[in-house]
Amino acid sequence: MNFADRLIAAVRGKKSHVVVGLDPRWQSLPPQLQNLATKYNGLEPQAAALAFYQFGRAIIDAVHDIAVAVKPQLAFYEQYGPWGMHALVQTVDYARQQGLLVIADAKRGDIGSTAVAYAQAYLGGITDGNDEPSWTMQADAVTVNAYLGSDGIEPFVKACAASGGGIFVLVKTSNKSSGELQDQLIAGEPVYARMARMVNRWGEDLVGKEGYSSVGAVVGATYPQEAAQLRQLMPQALFLVPGYGAQGASAQDVLPAFNPDGLGAVVNSSRGIIFAYQQDTQFGAEKYADAARAAAIRMRDDINQALVAKGQTSY
Amino acid sequence: MNFADRLIAAVRGKKSHVVVGLDPRWQSLPPQLQNLATKYNGLEPQAAALAFYQFGRAIIDAVHDIAVAVKPQLAFYEQYGPWGMHALVQTVDYARQQGLLVIADAKRGDIGSTAVAYAQAYLGGITDGNDEPSWTMQADAVTVNAYLGSDGIEPFVKACAASGGGIFVLVKTSNKSSGELQDQLIAGEPVYARMARMVNRWGEDLVGKEGYSSVGAVVGATYPQEAAQLRQLMPQALFLVPGYGAQGASAQDVLPAFNPDGLGAVVNSSRGIIFAYQQDTQFGAEKYADAARAAAIRMRDDINQALVAKGQTSY
Repeated sequence: MNFADRLIAAVRGKKSHVVVGLDPRWQSLPPQLQNLATKYNGLEPQAAALAFYQFGRAIIDAVHDIAVAVKPQLAFYEQYGPWGMHALVQTVDYARQQGLLVIADAKRGDIGSTAVAYAQAYLGGITDGNDEPSWTMQADAVTVNAYLGSDGIEPFVKACAASGGGIFVLVKTSNKSSGELQDQLIAGEPVYARMARMVNRWGEDLVGKEGYSSVGAVVGATYPQEAAQLRQLMPQALFLVPGYGAQGASAQDVLPAFNPDGLGAVVNSSRGIIFAYQQDTQFGAEKYADAARAAAIRMRDDINQALVAKGQTSY
Repeated sequence: MNFADRLIAAVRGKKSHVVVGLDPRWQSLPPQLQNLATKYNGLEPQAAALAFYQFGRAIIDAVHDIAVAVKPQLAFYEQYGPWGMHALVQTVDYARQQGLLVIADAKRGDIGSTAVAYAQAYLGGITDGNDEPSWTMQADAVTVNAYLGSDGIEPFVKACAASGGGIFVLVKTSNKSSGELQDQLIAGEPVYARMARMVNRWGEDLVGKEGYSSVGAVVGATYPQEAAQLRQLMPQALFLVPGYGAQGASAQDVLPAFNPDGLGAVVNSSRGIIFAYQQDTQFGAEKYADAARAAAIRMRDDINQALVAKGQTSY
């Protein structure tokens, strides 16, 4: 089944646009998880892998009915090499078992023959596995960087068609310096608008029954004006919107990423949810998962109320 | 010691500008490696990991005195998850033991707080490891994508300063569609030229004794005119030049990437060396490592002769 349709079904079923970013920074983990992991492993990478998996599992349990997806940030897992990757795979599998979609935040991008390997690694479906070792992390979608142009993206599009997966192409990112390249004008339009037109082209053949394509776009909530412009430029693209919460964007800021039908965007928060226990005196480190659940509910309701107030809701 | 100085010392010591790309595609591996690996592991990812490590080790043995560096392409290892990453780590360690520099071809790029994790993962030196699990793959350099701007690159620059590592920023890539974004004009100059100016700025504080910076640039040999322009724009940047051999570029095509001092560039070939046995009737699959060595020697001499003919050599 088409990724865009699956994501929209989750949005409707859970009445939520929330994506929970899994960014397991060791120094922010609850002390009891750190202590248990280092007790058995010392300050070895195995300790981080164990703690990351336990943490991710608890967060998944806490938000599985509130969020539509989790978005593991691969950098944090890769930091611990093979052990970290093992924790990532376990976490991804567990999230899918609990009914969550998984968006692998990998931001991969390479030339065509190499992009095939990345697409196979995270979405699968390209090589047939009949006469070679076969394995796939099996995310539902992956973030990609298109600085190299179409021939680095097309293998991912093929993998989406084969596996029912999706991609989110970096268009306008949420960070402060994103404008250094992305805002520069090419023939009168910003780089991000140029990228948006490419996203439309790549996504043409992957439009699902709901009218959205499995080739989506990353559009930061920290730039609402640009998001409004991009919403016009890419009416059929699903937006993955980072920047809500810890990065400073509000529910008002994410509204421009939605279409009038109340669909078209899912909003990510990472630290603001998974490390909510640090800000929330009602819970403490022991109840970090409860704090995450409460934060996810607040975020879901915050966005839903903002959409309703604008008459922009589909459920 | 500064990465740029280490790379130039290797170039002088070995009289070579050759980088061997480790792109272990299963279907191109010699049958005896495939057979041994699958005999013990079936078509499981462990088989690929075992074969990739054995293959990489044999290639490293064959080229360690001919090449200045190996460039493992992470996509092929990531395709086999934790097992692939384990093979990658083993391969990287072995290459360093054999006196080769290692350029991790990761093309990573993310927002600042995440870029810290990637920089730590591949270069190390940022977190102190005193009170958290510590581990680093320990490459000498890593390729990065700067679509997100400075705040995604600065953590890598810090890591370079701390660890003596280097980065190669994607500027003008070797693939066919690289121009879709990279050739577009911003205020009269192509995106790749804009990127080149940013590379200069990021590299200012990492210039070594030889006058080159540890912040280098990826400049494809398939675009020699653009390389000549970029050589002018970034006199102090080391160029990592892909595209020689299997991608179609010749020794003449790589010359514009060099400075008049005969330095400033290293040239990568992947398939053309590691799978040379497929083209070379003198050897066969059994002697794939000998075929790789012969191909690496031919490439080294080909580039050196072209440099000498232009009066552009430093040794």
